Amino acid sequence: MRLPQPSEGLVNSLYQRRHQLAQLVDFPVLLWSGGVRSRNFPANIYPFRASSHFLYFAGLSLVDTVIHLEGGKLTLFMDDPDPDSALWHGESLSRDRLAEIIGANSAFPKSELTQKSHNAATVRVQDPATLAEMERILKRPVMAPAAAVGQDLALIKAIINLRLCHDDAALSELKKAATVTVKAHQAGILATPTASHESDIRAAMEAVIIAHNMTCSYNSIVTTEGQVLHNELYHNPLKSGDLLLADVGAETPGGWAGDVTRTWPVSGTFSPTQADIYDIVLAAHDACIEQVKPGVEYRDIHLLAAAVITEGLVDLGILRGQVTELVEKDAHALFFPHGIGHLLGLDVHDMEDLGDLAGYAPGRKRSDRFGLGFLRLNRPLAPGMLVTIEPGFYQVPAILNHPSNRETYRDMVNWEQLEKFADVRGIRIEDDVLVTDSGREVLTAALPSQRHHLTK
Amino acid sequence: MRLPQPSEGLVNSLYQRRHQLAQLVDFPVLLWSGGVRSRNFPANIYPFRASSHFLYFAGLSLVDTVIHLEGGKLTLFMDDPDPDSALWHGESLSRDRLAEIIGANSAFPKSELTQKSHNAATVRVQDPATLAEMERILKRPVMAPAAAVGQDLALIKAIINLRLCHDDAALSELKKAATVTVKAHQAGILATPTASHESDIRAAMEAVIIAHNMTCSYNSIVTTEGQVLHNELYHNPLKSGDLLLADVGAETPGGWAGDVTRTWPVSGTFSPTQADIYDIVLAAHDACIEQVKPGVEYRDIHLLAAAVITEGLVDLGILRGQVTELVEKDAHALFFPHGIGHLLGLDVHDMEDLGDLAGYAPGRKRSDRFGLGFLRLNRPLAPGMLVTIEPGFYQVPAILNHPSNRETYRDMVNWEQLEKFADVRGIRIEDDVLVTDSGREVLTAALPSQRHHLTK
Repeated sequence: MRLPQPSEGLVNSLYQRRHQLAQLVDFPVLLWSGGVRSRNFPANIYPFRASSHFLYFAGLSLVDTVIHLEGGKLTLFMDDPDPDSALWHGESLSRDRLAEIIGANSAFPKSELTQKSHNAATVRVQDPATLAEMERILKRPVMAPAAAVGQDLALIKAIINLRLCHDDAALSELKKAATVTVKAHQAGILATPTASHESDIRAAMEAVIIAHNMTCSYNSIVTTEGQVLHNELYHNPLKSGDLLLADVGAETPGGWAGDVTRTWPVSGTFSPTQADIYDIVLAAHDACIEQVKPGVEYRDIHLLAAAVITEGLVDLGILRGQVTELVEKDAHALFFPHGIGHLLGLDVHDMEDLGDLAGYAPGRKRSDRFGLGFLRLNRPLAPGMLVTIEPGFYQVPAILNHPSNRETYRDMVNWEQLEKFADVRGIRIEDDVLVTDSGREVLTAALPSQRHHLTK
Repeated sequence: MRLPQPSEGLVNSLYQRRHQLAQLVDFPVLLWSGGVRSRNFPANIYPFRASSHFLYFAGLSLVDTVIHLEGGKLTLFMDDPDPDSALWHGESLSRDRLAEIIGANSAFPKSELTQKSHNAATVRVQDPATLAEMERILKRPVMAPAAAVGQDLALIKAIINLRLCHDDAALSELKKAATVTVKAHQAGILATPTASHESDIRAAMEAVIIAHNMTCSYNSIVTTEGQVLHNELYHNPLKSGDLLLADVGAETPGGWAGDVTRTWPVSGTFSPTQADIYDIVLAAHDACIEQVKPGVEYRDIHLLAAAVITEGLVDLGILRGQVTELVEKDAHALFFPHGIGHLLGLDVHDMEDLGDLAGYAPGRKRSDRFGLGFLRLNRPLAPGMLVTIEPGFYQVPAILNHPSNRETYRDMVNWEQLEKFADVRGIRIEDDVLVTDSGREVLTAALPSQRHHLTK
């Protein structure tokens, strides 16, 4: 057997999901898994990962495969492997066997696909070769989700409706991803005393993910330059006095993601200034998680983080003024320039391929405020939603040295006082929080975030 | 500084390489690095890796960048990063600074590219979006290398001429890749006694590569099912009595590859049957490496491996007949169905994107013989060539159970005797061997291959 099989529970969930879809749309749907992408030559490919929408209804990461969904029925379209491929890739499961495993009603080679393509809605995939195939089969352009109209747009809205709140099979996978993500962070913390470079910590963390037969759900951030928000370099030596920021997550073979950040001192000891700022970020983190429950607006949780961070910075003498007024003027965003978090599911930024159709409730739009515009999620919370809570503090030169910011916030920031905190370049604390009927469950709670757990 | 810099030696080599190119072609050349590829949503990208031809002349893995080469002069075309990107990605090196680092003669934004595109030859890249850009800029189709004609074909031949034999800067990088590859294998062997699954060994090996700030030069093979030649699953539990085959290689940040295979017993002890077959593969490995020197035909080294393996299998009673005759009838290929190795350089199968133009000397074509058709390299060896030597023995069901093979080799194989070797599913021993003026240097010699080094 050449492919790990999904559990019984997943097969039932796949059945449920497509019947739920049938209640939301009355037209046929075709979803493509996507194709492999070559790295430096055709046979040297990036590890394949099927489209999330395909995975949600098909469960298995099958290359170059299409599913047809209509009235709760699933038809699988894929070609049996070339007989010669058994030499190089071993015996594969046949199309009929795979159809049985995912509970498909029928299965055909891809040459039969055109017969089922009439009037079908779809969602665009990421790889251009598959996009070309979609357009050829459907005999029409397939627009990016932000430009989708008609049935395609109706399908996108139906999928969002389903994927926003996770079912039991999804939660089972997301908890596995969270568990391994936590273990990766524990390994990173443990590896620090003997590590010489950022890359050593990254290696210890990703080794845990690889050992559990998972993959990274995004390119790891493991850096002493936490002020570079999407840092993907790992070459810096570790220096005593540095803080190390690690934003690393595991993804299960079925595609479900974890996403956790911790920040800890290289030397095993926070400096007094690092401890002061850490505790402000932690206070925001704890206060925000406490607010996660059904009906609460995620935007309000973001603003709560802004208020807690602002209050802390006023107490430290870094910001000057009334907390409410400072937040209204986006002074918090000088140091906390991103949103409090995002949806988490099959994608680490769940359904981000659909743009703000997923993240923003109908009728809502991105704010043009400096302190709100980067918020990726603006919906009331509902049971089954999984979100990250990830407040942070950063000294980003591009923000703090920007002439217009210097001018706007001249009197709100005590720049001299700020200089005393030069050894705090970037801190973020991030957990994965499930909205439950009665409140919340922190899926990554096994990883402590208090300072004394992160020091020697 | 946001990008590790190339060494002084590399800059000099880049200068040499483009002057050598200028002696081979009298037309302008444009080489694209390629773009990022999205995984499940646009911002979640696969780790970027520039085209090897670009890297050969530009040295740095720069995204969406083009170099113009003419008369030994290098012009760099890239856009300075969006000012907003400093918030997310930190301060980047400017185009002018990068031009200085790689020794470019001048540098322009990409909007100026059309001015330098007239009559330029190029080599097709792997990603479709960049291919579309190439065709738009050049105002013509850019064919796959196998179909290239005119100046594009002349450019491909010139690049092969240069890249076939490595210069000192390349060898310096290739030796670094070899060193880390060896360390990864040592870690895999060390991790075996406490490992429970294939994935644990893979994790130990790839952690070494990550810790050295390198990447895998191909998707690792770490399997107890070595008979699946391109196995990319790692979920099997390790059982006493299994052999573990690990084919894992490191790639330096500049793109230079290592490629090593070792096969060792999970329990720390080879069974007598495993030892018998291992020693045959090792004898082939050692005999082939001994033959590596300038002027020797790589095809003859392949046939030597076939002969040594055949002789060993005759001695064990698995094959019946005269060695020469058995090899002529491709009986060896029942158990050794791939070639003895391939070129190694910026690509793990170096220049495989160019098809057999690189691997096969002018006028030579793939054989249609079962025992020769998979040979990736068919050239006389020359100083500076780096090749792998990787004989193996496999019991591939798709080959051994194939009715026509059963018929053809009915009397040449003692099928009953073969059954005694059922615990030998796949063995491969692979090293990276440099052709020197006087013979050879095994770049991966620090990793022993004798049985007693691989047992407890």
